[in-house]
Amino acid sequence: MSTAVSPLAPKSLPTLPPVAGVRLATAAAGIRYTERTDVLLATFAPGTSVAGVFTRSRCPSAPVEWCRDRLAGGSIGALVVNSGNANAFTGKNGRAATALTAELAAAAVGCSESEVFLASTGVIGEPLDARKFEGVMSRLAADAVEDGWEAAARAIMTTDTFPKLATRSVEVSGRTVTINGIAKGAGMIAPDMATMLAYVATDAAISAQALQALLARAADRSFNCVTVDGDTSTSDTLMAFATGAAGNAKIASADDPALAAFAAAFESLLIELAQLVARDGEGARKFVTVEVSGAESEASARRIALSIANSPLVKTAVAGEDANWGRVVMAVGKAGEPADRDRLSIRFGDVRVAVDGERDPAYDEALVSAYMKNEEILIAVDIGLGDGFARVWTCDLTEGYIAINADYRS
Amino acid sequence: MSTAVSPLAPKSLPTLPPVAGVRLATAAAGIRYTERTDVLLATFAPGTSVAGVFTRSRCPSAPVEWCRDRLAGGSIGALVVNSGNANAFTGKNGRAATALTAELAAAAVGCSESEVFLASTGVIGEPLDARKFEGVMSRLAADAVEDGWEAAARAIMTTDTFPKLATRSVEVSGRTVTINGIAKGAGMIAPDMATMLAYVATDAAISAQALQALLARAADRSFNCVTVDGDTSTSDTLMAFATGAAGNAKIASADDPALAAFAAAFESLLIELAQLVARDGEGARKFVTVEVSGAESEASARRIALSIANSPLVKTAVAGEDANWGRVVMAVGKAGEPADRDRLSIRFGDVRVAVDGERDPAYDEALVSAYMKNEEILIAVDIGLGDGFARVWTCDLTEGYIAINADYRS
Repeated sequence: MSTAVSPLAPKSLPTLPPVAGVRLATAAAGIRYTERTDVLLATFAPGTSVAGVFTRSRCPSAPVEWCRDRLAGGSIGALVVNSGNANAFTGKNGRAATALTAELAAAAVGCSESEVFLASTGVIGEPLDARKFEGVMSRLAADAVEDGWEAAARAIMTTDTFPKLATRSVEVSGRTVTINGIAKGAGMIAPDMATMLAYVATDAAISAQALQALLARAADRSFNCVTVDGDTSTSDTLMAFATGAAGNAKIASADDPALAAFAAAFESLLIELAQLVARDGEGARKFVTVEVSGAESEASARRIALSIANSPLVKTAVAGEDANWGRVVMAVGKAGEPADRDRLSIRFGDVRVAVDGERDPAYDEALVSAYMKNEEILIAVDIGLGDGFARVWTCDLTEGYIAINADYRS
Repeated sequence: MSTAVSPLAPKSLPTLPPVAGVRLATAAAGIRYTERTDVLLATFAPGTSVAGVFTRSRCPSAPVEWCRDRLAGGSIGALVVNSGNANAFTGKNGRAATALTAELAAAAVGCSESEVFLASTGVIGEPLDARKFEGVMSRLAADAVEDGWEAAARAIMTTDTFPKLATRSVEVSGRTVTINGIAKGAGMIAPDMATMLAYVATDAAISAQALQALLARAADRSFNCVTVDGDTSTSDTLMAFATGAAGNAKIASADDPALAAFAAAFESLLIELAQLVARDGEGARKFVTVEVSGAESEASARRIALSIANSPLVKTAVAGEDANWGRVVMAVGKAGEPADRDRLSIRFGDVRVAVDGERDPAYDEALVSAYMKNEEILIAVDIGLGDGFARVWTCDLTEGYIAINADYRS
């Protein structure tokens, strides 16, 4: 497997400040490989609110079911994430492994088992030996520090070629609060769910209910707008934590005006993390934004945009720096959404290639070919029927994707 | 672009006998490349019945619209198919090109323009200069012969690496009749439509209405069960012709018992052609059959089977000879159909790898790894909920697919 960093990776990693009330530690528990950091423990101050959105897979992993069942409690004491094994499709053993992991974490951290949240990422179907956590959990809890964000982002990587981190600072009711986020994910990425693993923590005081509403809304405009290969993981998890350490008057509703700036910063952080995932798409060499306007509705625009973003033929054309807009027409046609061929127009960047259902009379192959050499490509389609708009992000499809996925498990 | 023949191609091409009432001729009209056979003319005896099923794309090509509008007439005099240009997304010019082509063919063959059927395959969005047919049409009509089937199959190829032909001989009301079929297609192949270009001709006497019913039913069990990349062409066309030259009493209904053997042979021929398309999937090295049983309904089984067959992660795992059944679980989960993780079982060939939602207790990695080295792979999933069954065919996803599609247009 190639370990070269994606050419679309940010030139430098941001430095994340501490989030008061959150401590992080990582260790090598030998889940799948020895000598490789593969477990993250995060501990949270008492009373930290928790929210989460999870995969819509009908075959979710054991940790996803564990988290879903405990979300109503509204508070978190510890988060345990391991890489190397997804603990998915592992039956009764899988459920036992989640229970044992939670028991170990609760004892080490000193919280209730129902306040432990879990995630596992890696191979599906291999039994997870949770006893391996036994040897490291106490030390993790003792070692946890406030400035461990980059190490945390690295510990949850699988086929990722770079760690994914983002941070924001914003005012809530006169207090300056921090929002930190980390994510992992490079393949088996598609929307229609809360994609891959991503964790966002803030020291703002926000109720679990408000945080959940905020998270669901922002997920829809960020992680649910990114796709690498249209495949949906059994383990996708996006969680948010609010420790309250900043000391603002606790916000009870996502629509509280005092939360407006926070909500905007929160959403932009999630978009940044989601885009980092597309930028690390397996084998990616180009970052692609697909914009669909003029659809009959926002939902229709989104389905058309995803049909384009998921089309292997569109993605290979981008890889080949070929402005093959005929394949964009194909992808619009197969989306099954209202479309009138004779009203379609298509742009690559600022270059209009098709209008009113035909090649643009001013079509200039040299101009559009030059545009396709860029590392960031915009494909913009106007359906010409209504006001529906959507924007999604993806990457190109290269030989690298095949090489990575044809030998991932072996 | 590689021109090596797919390793999954049949070892030899069948020799197709004549179908009385059908004559074929090919020529190099210079549609896109010079000196390359790129146009097929088929002529039909007066009174030949016609049936067709076409792409469900919302942005169909001009020839698809032309054919749909004329199908109700029920009879065909001539068929013109060109490769090199799809005449899709070509607006008014595209419609004018179909009209001119039909006019030229009707004059050359001596039939009505409304009895001319058309198809174009190749690049989307380039205007098709139908005047190029003018120089070749009369000669094509004069040269047409009954034994031109292999040449016809070759003339409609684009990225195909081998011509696709099949034949059957069967009794209808005491007369022996022939069924011949040809097809083209290698990428931009997905079901939910009548896939790619395929033409089936017989000398049996069958009404257009009966032929249409027969064709729609058989398409659903053949071409609609094959997928290469999940992409849906703007031009997909499957047509059937019945000349009546065999002299059987004309069959008026697809359910006529006299047609039973014919219907079975017709369907098996369509399945053979559809499988040939998957065997020529761009870059394919393995032929994959996906069987889903125990789903809540046949439709549900089919959606799950297609979710597996279209998953890039499943297809790259097969390419890597990796029995990565976790990805099969993932694809079942993302299909959105009823499924209960704890009832799933999965086989690769005869090797059961998972049962009751866990890895098979008798799982033998060496055994299943050996199986994955085969050129033909069966992935069988039992959902454990009901009686719904479906079978679809696909191929693996290799670097070859990327290489072909990243530089197809250039």
